[in-house]
Amino acid sequence: MQTWFQEKSFHKRHVQGSEIKSKLHEEQSQYQKIEVFDTYSYGKLLTLDGKTMVSNIDEFIYHEVTAHVPYMVHPKVENVLIIGGGDGGVVREYTRHSDIKKIDLVEIDKRVIEVSKKYFPECTSGLDDPRVNVFAEDGIEFIKKCKNKYDIIVVDSTDPEDFAAGLFTESFYAQVNNALKEDGIMINQTETPFFDEYDMGAIYQNLRKAFPFVRSYSAPMLIYPGVYWSFGFSSKKYSPTSFVSEKISQMTELQKSLKWYNMDWHKGAFALSNLHKRRIGEL
Amino acid sequence: MQTWFQEKSFHKRHVQGSEIKSKLHEEQSQYQKIEVFDTYSYGKLLTLDGKTMVSNIDEFIYHEVTAHVPYMVHPKVENVLIIGGGDGGVVREYTRHSDIKKIDLVEIDKRVIEVSKKYFPECTSGLDDPRVNVFAEDGIEFIKKCKNKYDIIVVDSTDPEDFAAGLFTESFYAQVNNALKEDGIMINQTETPFFDEYDMGAIYQNLRKAFPFVRSYSAPMLIYPGVYWSFGFSSKKYSPTSFVSEKISQMTELQKSLKWYNMDWHKGAFALSNLHKRRIGEL
Repeated sequence: MQTWFQEKSFHKRHVQGSEIKSKLHEEQSQYQKIEVFDTYSYGKLLTLDGKTMVSNIDEFIYHEVTAHVPYMVHPKVENVLIIGGGDGGVVREYTRHSDIKKIDLVEIDKRVIEVSKKYFPECTSGLDDPRVNVFAEDGIEFIKKCKNKYDIIVVDSTDPEDFAAGLFTESFYAQVNNALKEDGIMINQTETPFFDEYDMGAIYQNLRKAFPFVRSYSAPMLIYPGVYWSFGFSSKKYSPTSFVSEKISQMTELQKSLKWYNMDWHKGAFALSNLHKRRIGEL
Repeated sequence: MQTWFQEKSFHKRHVQGSEIKSKLHEEQSQYQKIEVFDTYSYGKLLTLDGKTMVSNIDEFIYHEVTAHVPYMVHPKVENVLIIGGGDGGVVREYTRHSDIKKIDLVEIDKRVIEVSKKYFPECTSGLDDPRVNVFAEDGIEFIKKCKNKYDIIVVDSTDPEDFAAGLFTESFYAQVNNALKEDGIMINQTETPFFDEYDMGAIYQNLRKAFPFVRSYSAPMLIYPGVYWSFGFSSKKYSPTSFVSEKISQMTELQKSLKWYNMDWHKGAFALSNLHKRRIGEL
């Protein structure tokens, strides 16, 4: 019986993992192997092709920082698109804001959504919100049909390989730019500065070709290899650390109930280490 | 043959590690088992009783953040004491500042210093500086003999167990306070907010009993379980984010050659997440 989940990365030579209580689910979908474990260190853990995606111990970090960071700096967030993110956690965070009118979720693998509904109901709770529309489609194809439509687009993807590699290219970022309104913001996960298994410098070069203002911020993700994680903030107009003044009192109240995000943390997260700056070509 | 180093923590149920190229050193000193590995993911790695202490991939983070953070906010740093830290990395960072007159290093296990000199010469390089005095003594006994002597004391310890448990108590912190001058600053490592294997809340309660101003900051340490790491800043007088204005131009120059620290990062590191704040009783 398998008693440990361990993800081996950095050319298979770094390992992180947790002892397993039990395996709750295993299937081969059209796209990938989906597994859910009950673990000692992470609580429930969803993996895709053996790679950690979502766990109880840290899901709120990824989801809060990809939602509330752009929300706080964009003056009028009405339409949001999330590409990937079939666990629903990013959607849940956007549904906390009553001024948002429409949240589209495009997840290529509908089985990820269904498995998440069963095992991560605290993540998928937002999917029942009437403002939310779920599309089981390829995000790369979906975005080609959109123009001047969204205020924020979150690319909640796996690593830049296999069918997710296309979500890190210059041409995809140009499509995202097209799909955003003239003052839109794109957020995406951009790997860990610790390892060079994926080329962060290339990811940021591609972002800079598609957007006039590109910044990076960081938050730890315990289940991801290296933990010290980075996110891209690519913007047509707004600075990532200038809050919309009308939103401050609202967030002052909301952040009391959040597990990770607060406005001080938000500003600090963009103050990068030299290591992080060098990795993305800012130093 | 052993091909992986894995540290199991969080009640032995979380694991991190790297594949090993070779084991370079192994001995049982008077205090602990000292091993040095050549690894694929971390470069060289020093462990004490199987716990990760220092590695090439991230040693600069711990050492830069425990040295330059207090240096930048204390107006006149002349005498520094480092308890533990036999690898010499913290000393190396303090020796970068020419206005510091005296740096005392108290490491209980002189074999850690000797092994570090052999395998981590880039860390121990500062130990030859004429301002540095090395004492192979128990820090808890050493500090009892000091009164009103140091501007900064760094407690570079292992986890709060076995012979290092005494470095996390209220009475030890009171001794550190005594050993500091009337405007002194103490820095110590205070574990990861992710896990509750060690009680961060209790550590900060003890610090607050001994110091009027206690703050926490964070930086990732790849080789430590959980990676997302916390440090305590305990002060008699100075705020952790108000720089001494005369030092800013000097640091503007120095930080270009540092691997992690810069002044923007310094300020951001004290902007804590809600998770971190709750763990130390600040929320």
